[in-house]
Amino acid sequence: MAQPLPISGTFLDEVTCDIPGHNWGAEQWAVEFDSFVAVGIDTVILIRSGWGPRLSHPTAVLRSKVSTLPVYADMVELFLNLADARGIAFYFGLYDSGSHWNRNDWQGEVALNRPYIPEVYQRYGAHPSFAGWYLPHETYDSGQRIIELNTTLAELCKAEADLPVLSSPYWLGRHDMHLGFSLPAPSPRSLDEIVTQWDEIFSHYSGLVDVAAFQDGTVYEQDLPDTLRAMRQLADRHNISLWSNVETFDRDMPIKFPPIEWRKLIHKLTSAEGLVDKAICFEFSHFLSPNSIWPSGRNLFARYQEYLAGSHRPLT
Amino acid sequence: MAQPLPISGTFLDEVTCDIPGHNWGAEQWAVEFDSFVAVGIDTVILIRSGWGPRLSHPTAVLRSKVSTLPVYADMVELFLNLADARGIAFYFGLYDSGSHWNRNDWQGEVALNRPYIPEVYQRYGAHPSFAGWYLPHETYDSGQRIIELNTTLAELCKAEADLPVLSSPYWLGRHDMHLGFSLPAPSPRSLDEIVTQWDEIFSHYSGLVDVAAFQDGTVYEQDLPDTLRAMRQLADRHNISLWSNVETFDRDMPIKFPPIEWRKLIHKLTSAEGLVDKAICFEFSHFLSPNSIWPSGRNLFARYQEYLAGSHRPLT
Amino acid sequence: MAQPLPISGTFLDEVTCDIPGHNWGAEQWAVEFDSFVAVGIDTVILIRSGWGPRLSHPTAVLRSKVSTLPVYADMVELFLNLADARGIAFYFGLYDSGSHWNRNDWQGEVALNRPYIPEVYQRYGAHPSFAGWYLPHETYDSGQRIIELNTTLAELCKAEADLPVLSSPYWLGRHDMHLGFSLPAPSPRSLDEIVTQWDEIFSHYSGLVDVAAFQDGTVYEQDLPDTLRAMRQLADRHNISLWSNVETFDRDMPIKFPPIEWRKLIHKLTSAEGLVDKAICFEFSHFLSPNSIWPSGRNLFARYQEYLAGSHRPLT
Repeated sequence: MAQPLPISGTFLDEVTCDIPGHNWGAEQWAVEFDSFVAVGIDTVILIRSGWGPRLSHPTAVLRSKVSTLPVYADMVELFLNLADARGIAFYFGLYDSGSHWNRNDWQGEVALNRPYIPEVYQRYGAHPSFAGWYLPHETYDSGQRIIELNTTLAELCKAEADLPVLSSPYWLGRHDMHLGFSLPAPSPRSLDEIVTQWDEIFSHYSGLVDVAAFQDGTVYEQDLPDTLRAMRQLADRHNISLWSNVETFDRDMPIKFPPIEWRKLIHKLTSAEGLVDKAICFEFSHFLSPNSIWPSGRNLFARYQEYLAGSHRPLT
Repeated sequence: MAQPLPISGTFLDEVTCDIPGHNWGAEQWAVEFDSFVAVGIDTVILIRSGWGPRLSHPTAVLRSKVSTLPVYADMVELFLNLADARGIAFYFGLYDSGSHWNRNDWQGEVALNRPYIPEVYQRYGAHPSFAGWYLPHETYDSGQRIIELNTTLAELCKAEADLPVLSSPYWLGRHDMHLGFSLPAPSPRSLDEIVTQWDEIFSHYSGLVDVAAFQDGTVYEQDLPDTLRAMRQLADRHNISLWSNVETFDRDMPIKFPPIEWRKLIHKLTSAEGLVDKAICFEFSHFLSPNSIWPSGRNLFARYQEYLAGSHRPLT
Repeated sequence: MAQPLPISGTFLDEVTCDIPGHNWGAEQWAVEFDSFVAVGIDTVILIRSGWGPRLSHPTAVLRSKVSTLPVYADMVELFLNLADARGIAFYFGLYDSGSHWNRNDWQGEVALNRPYIPEVYQRYGAHPSFAGWYLPHETYDSGQRIIELNTTLAELCKAEADLPVLSSPYWLGRHDMHLGFSLPAPSPRSLDEIVTQWDEIFSHYSGLVDVAAFQDGTVYEQDLPDTLRAMRQLADRHNISLWSNVETFDRDMPIKFPPIEWRKLIHKLTSAEGLVDKAICFEFSHFLSPNSIWPSGRNLFARYQEYLAGSHRPLT
């Protein structure tokens, strides 16, 4: 019988896009990293190092190429130091200009990241926790030249430092994915369509993008087990590591976004048991941490601990 | 002079629809039920036992008829045990498939609940706290075959166990009722229209649906006193018990939904003084409880206690 | 080199419009006013004393002229007493019927406030903390007869009691200003257009409206320094005192509105250093206070204290 699936990684939501800042200082981040160790989180992934004018650290390259806001804190240095001291693996998320999605300008994204990647590795690569790269341009299909964009970025990353490259795509398996966003909302994909898309994408990713951690809240909960089984087959065929990116926020509520209802979390974890190589989450600190600013996040952590201890198995 | 109106009942928001879960565990629910006793809450109403694929307890009947998610906890058993031990009356909310509203298929709702009601009563009816039934299909007028639906469900409930049947309709007396929802937004009703609709509905409910607890935030605050007086006359004419379902969440804010501003709560309670047979609320645990995850909910509880102690009477 | 800019004033969000009530009682407000003193807040501004049917205090004038809700607490008296005891200056925000914006009926607003201003001053003017008037009808340009409205209201205020008159306009310098509101969304203004509008408005305000505290989140963050420099020139030309109304809530998030991310706050304060005569905020109690109901607001306060102590200067 399958065992409970522990979450052993989390995104760090810098630069934040749609999750309000908790406004933690250096001391609170240190407490959080201690919690990471205590709960078995060995991997942290910076979701993006910059987004449009917002930067998580000083960078001469980006400041010379795009309009940016001043940087008041080097969050990357802070995170790497905290990770170094605790033996946590840190994955660096590249820069997302935000304009690719409207202009379909994948070469522009590459042009910005091409000189940025060496600058980053020169500045931070000596940190022992610097363990890999993360591609922040998420996608649900092969449109918008995502194959060219992400394989090129992966090549640039591996050329700079031959470390694992992570991605975290989504499925667009629900009709309400874009609620509250300004993006156009395409039709949800059937599982057949999802498989077709990812078979093609993975055939290009193979050897370049090492990990696909699908966002597990992007199909209906009932469809998650079948979807994960199909992805497992695809990942094996293309020699890609399949992780689950467990969404710890709730997509179904008028408030965008609170911590997820505990049964949804348990269901998603249970559905992934035995199917994925690793479970990470988006993200621990706001929504699941014992240090969360949301009381319901701290309660969610208690329910999650009960699940790890063997409670909350499906009733018959 | 009218006396302060205590809230002596609350809904239990399982399965939740638009209120994020607080993710309480069994111990926290026990604390909450102790709070119920301390503040004079003698009645709890499960708002629905299932909604679409989500279920609050294991049920072979529904699992054989609709696509459902696994059940990880029997919340009904938990609530009944807590209520038994404290002398609290528990009302069981029926199953809402969620599809009636789009398909206008009232007979489909009946077909699901017809075998479900006996299953429920056989499983839970021996609990001394099992005090009655709640009809989860809310309505604001006689459309969508709500009379046929709710009278038929009430008949089935009373045939299974002749216990009180509760309903909690609304008025559609505001133009902004459906903000944030995907339902079409009909025009708000005048008080004359409201009276016409409920005179007809109550004439059918009489003898079957014992209680109408109108949602008190569904007319403009200025119109609440007149609306309640009109409902009092209607309820008396049709021998239905009139309760107030005091909404403890705020409909007026961009955040959907925070605890209500205290003066709105006081105004609604004051407006119902001397007019209703009982005041319940939707709902205590998220928005008014001393255990609320919202600090403003805990503060609201303090203001409500001041009101009960005689403060916050209208100033001249 | 410029020094950190302390926030020495705050709005009091009564009657609230789009910020959920924290439901503080008299004791909590006393704690908050003590915090005002501790953090150097010497000025509080009641954002409006009434809005549509909602009133912050009993008023025979308004009750005779508009449909109002009962008043359950005299918040103005509470605030004035707290301010008196602590040497804090209190500015009284006039009544906003809410209907001006749809009906373009500036004379209706004046007709309501003309008898209301003497009533207010007779009731509250003897309080030593009663320091001035605030014009609650915010605007971003000279449309909707705002010049006639606000200069007439300012004349009435000064005729009743010759005290400073404050305003807090906005710039409409972003394309996403009205997200979540029902107002029509005009095009964002260029800086040239902003200057043209406010040159005209200030020429009429001069000698009547003493202070313009622009809402600092109503241009893109990158544009704030240039915008403030231009406003400084205009304000000097027209002999108006330029304050910054530092928005402590985040406009960029799906949740409307959480405490702002700390780096945005630091950037806006840094941008205003040396340019404004005073910084106030909207508002301290919900979003920046050590007593905030938002944990991220309490954390924001810690980051703000670090800024005042010299941290968080721009990195190079």
